[in-house]
Amino acid sequence: MKSRLLFAAACAAFAASALAHSPEEDAVEYRQGLMTVIGWNFGPLGAMVKGKKPFDASAFALHAERIAYLSDQVVEGFPKGSDKAAHTDAKAALWANFDDFSDKAKAFNTESRALAEVARSKDEAKMKAQFKKVAEACKACHEKYKND
Amino acid sequence: MKSRLLFAAACAAFAASALAHSPEEDAVEYRQGLMTVIGWNFGPLGAMVKGKKPFDASAFALHAERIAYLSDQVVEGFPKGSDKAAHTDAKAALWANFDDFSDKAKAFNTESRALAEVARSKDEAKMKAQFKKVAEACKACHEKYKND
Repeated sequence: MKSRLLFAAACAAFAASALAHSPEEDAVEYRQGLMTVIGWNFGPLGAMVKGKKPFDASAFALHAERIAYLSDQVVEGFPKGSDKAAHTDAKAALWANFDDFSDKAKAFNTESRALAEVARSKDEAKMKAQFKKVAEACKACHEKYKND
Repeated sequence: MKSRLLFAAACAAFAASALAHSPEEDAVEYRQGLMTVIGWNFGPLGAMVKGKKPFDASAFALHAERIAYLSDQVVEGFPKGSDKAAHTDAKAALWANFDDFSDKAKAFNTESRALAEVARSKDEAKMKAQFKKVAEACKACHEKYKND
């Protein structure tokens, strides 16, 4: 009985904190959370590429690997109907052009995986060049489907 | 030149959206985003374990694997000084007992990895039993270090 109570309480804690709203609002929270986590890992890469932080091949590879992993989880955060949810930064055009959006998200994943792959080589010039492709993939999608 | 501009714009977009504040506030956004992403994956597992959703061993394994991956990225979201940042739900006790907090976060990672491992067996009873250990690991940390 004790373990059932513990379990119920832990689930309730998650439900109350992270996912407390309608399924559409949950999706908005999820996708914004996911983007924040991606951004957290993207930041140090950008700083290294721009020379604002010393280049660290191992740290670069770690952050690149995480972005590759997470970039595959973007599309599920944009279910139909979540264009109407509160606090979304996504444009309605995203759902009107869902195949194009999915292609752009897939390109982000492809370029990110290539970055993680290149990072294993520890070739700084190649890592920096591929990072720019990832950044361009971000921009291609944000520019078309994200409100500033 | 064009690619340098594109790159700068994409970095700016990330900086403006996800990580726009002080390093401490960035950390709060990151850790809350990470918890939301973990919660997004935890939800379907809880629903399956409680019988509110049909049991799907493949979906279970996917979500468990993600939680195992993400649970290793919790501690970095709690740098010193981020107890004073706006909107944090973490108690000051977390930083006063940082080793204990780290141990609890590590236990969450260990139990989550065990869940991902058990999920590969597709043994429903074992998966459900291990899920409860993950939920208890969440609760052990939240109860002590998170404000409701």
